[in-house]
Amino acid sequence: MTSKLNNNTEATAHADVNRQLLLAARPNGVPDESHFEYRISDVPKLSDGEFLVRNRWISLDPAMRGWMSSGKSYIPPVEVGEVMRAFSAGHVVSSKHSEFKVGMQVAGVFGLQDYAVSKGEYVRAACPGVKLEEMLGPVGLPGITAYFGLLDIGKPKANETVVVSAAAGAVGSIVVQIAKRKGCRVVGIAGTPEKCAFVKELGADSVINYKADDYWQQFKAAVPNGCDVYFDNVGGVTLEYALRKLNVSGRIVLCGAISHYNAASITGPAAYLSLLSNRARMEGFVYFDYVDQFDEAEMELAAWVRDGSLKYGFHIEQGLLRAPEVLAKLFSGANTGKLLIEVEQAEAGDA
Amino acid sequence: MTSKLNNNTEATAHADVNRQLLLAARPNGVPDESHFEYRISDVPKLSDGEFLVRNRWISLDPAMRGWMSSGKSYIPPVEVGEVMRAFSAGHVVSSKHSEFKVGMQVAGVFGLQDYAVSKGEYVRAACPGVKLEEMLGPVGLPGITAYFGLLDIGKPKANETVVVSAAAGAVGSIVVQIAKRKGCRVVGIAGTPEKCAFVKELGADSVINYKADDYWQQFKAAVPNGCDVYFDNVGGVTLEYALRKLNVSGRIVLCGAISHYNAASITGPAAYLSLLSNRARMEGFVYFDYVDQFDEAEMELAAWVRDGSLKYGFHIEQGLLRAPEVLAKLFSGANTGKLLIEVEQAEAGDA
Repeated sequence: MTSKLNNNTEATAHADVNRQLLLAARPNGVPDESHFEYRISDVPKLSDGEFLVRNRWISLDPAMRGWMSSGKSYIPPVEVGEVMRAFSAGHVVSSKHSEFKVGMQVAGVFGLQDYAVSKGEYVRAACPGVKLEEMLGPVGLPGITAYFGLLDIGKPKANETVVVSAAAGAVGSIVVQIAKRKGCRVVGIAGTPEKCAFVKELGADSVINYKADDYWQQFKAAVPNGCDVYFDNVGGVTLEYALRKLNVSGRIVLCGAISHYNAASITGPAAYLSLLSNRARMEGFVYFDYVDQFDEAEMELAAWVRDGSLKYGFHIEQGLLRAPEVLAKLFSGANTGKLLIEVEQAEAGDA
Repeated sequence: MTSKLNNNTEATAHADVNRQLLLAARPNGVPDESHFEYRISDVPKLSDGEFLVRNRWISLDPAMRGWMSSGKSYIPPVEVGEVMRAFSAGHVVSSKHSEFKVGMQVAGVFGLQDYAVSKGEYVRAACPGVKLEEMLGPVGLPGITAYFGLLDIGKPKANETVVVSAAAGAVGSIVVQIAKRKGCRVVGIAGTPEKCAFVKELGADSVINYKADDYWQQFKAAVPNGCDVYFDNVGGVTLEYALRKLNVSGRIVLCGAISHYNAASITGPAAYLSLLSNRARMEGFVYFDYVDQFDEAEMELAAWVRDGSLKYGFHIEQGLLRAPEVLAKLFSGANTGKLLIEVEQAEAGDA
């Protein structure tokens, strides 16, 4: 069945059908609806050791752009014709699995569809006292990414200067707050006055709009003692500036490079030799590397969410089939806070 | 006194004068004689705690190019009008220092001159059984740089693939041999058939001439299991290739970037996001960081030199005043092996 994404009776959620969005073509630049195909499938049947999840919340993440491209990466790309990979959260509607019982709320990599079959790999049970959607934000991929990226790769010490790009974003906003908890001086970079105000609310000592004409002047002024840790979500000019102001033994945490994801070619950081003269390091990491330590991060992040000390913003859009259109917002910077799709629930009782 | 570098009676070494080469101007590209000024000074008098060294061997190192430029680096630049900084080796000719006695052979940062006053900072006594000039090569800056760069930053494990650029050079040739001692598969990169043959003699499993038309094809073929450690002395295209073939948890040791040193602008490594997808790291280091551990490296390197198991090449040119002209060879790749100047010794007895 070909793509019919809008105003279409077949697009309505039903308990007995599984609406799916498949990767239809690999994008060159920003992905749009033409790269997805809509299909209605049967609700899958379970084998032993499996359970069925009904998606409620779907997370749209910058990483999805990478998964749509072929080429070597930390996990295989989504193949054309496969259901598009996505983090999501929902509840178990049927189960032949000993641990995951009907009714449990879970988060995992369930894809752009109503129903997903899982054997439990990378599936986390919702933490008590935490909203299900928060399992996709401060206690999910973004929170855990921020937690290990900053603490394990960045290793900030009290009174050090930590610079965070995309500081109003899903990961950056958590990095800002964890760095403040560690006693650091935090400089947040964002791209609109509203985002800058949000980053200031999160406790950043200094906030810069990277679209300002005098960005470099502001950047320099914001790091009078240089930059000890730069948490990079964007690449591009901000990475150059951080390299130029990097201190001896500085650490650059490569978490993402959203400024490059849809570019035809990537410009490398011309100032990279700052790593040499400053005996500094630039290091990448991937969320999945820490799977054995998720519990530790989850416990701490969940505690901060419960006691209200960790602030977090969501940008929620309605309707599974709008995922392709909404995904483009990520790359235009139109969203403030974690971008989620709320999936319509079926009229009839699930399962 | 202005520059009179050639065929000049004043250029002759005398026991009672100190011929000095000062930085006269900061170069933009490759340094030449116009950037130096020749001056004849008195042999310095000593204060308590000082000793006087008569230089015998002067080392010409890529790092000197950086010291000639202003701008933030790991040590202050040489100021215009100061004696040009250089590593060198010689013997103590007079002393008011409790440790460094007359007659001792020493290596240190004594500059482009006949005589230098020292208080002992960064001065190493020659190791027994090691030639004085070897204190500037396998047991000096290049050897110690190779040792800590490879072992402390690169951390190679047996059976891993280590790629070394400028593998026939002063540092690279030692890196190749230490990596082989650690049981690694070693790929050496050099720029002439003679250099490639030398690297093969050092024990490299595979050697590539980076000037070959099919360099990328050869590079890929030489690392069938990818690259675990890349020891970078050059930057540029070889750094790109190493990033493209980098393995998960790979390590790029930034030791130098000779392809960039005289360039008006530096091109950053476009493939740097390989660090992210491979949760890999690129890290710089500086010889001086390891000053507290020099003894450890020196002892091991000296033992390998004494037992003949560490091969090493020198390229020796005669005459202090030729240093500016000879320095340019470093950047044209004209030398194979460690580039040294042998300083004329005075006709009369020293001191």
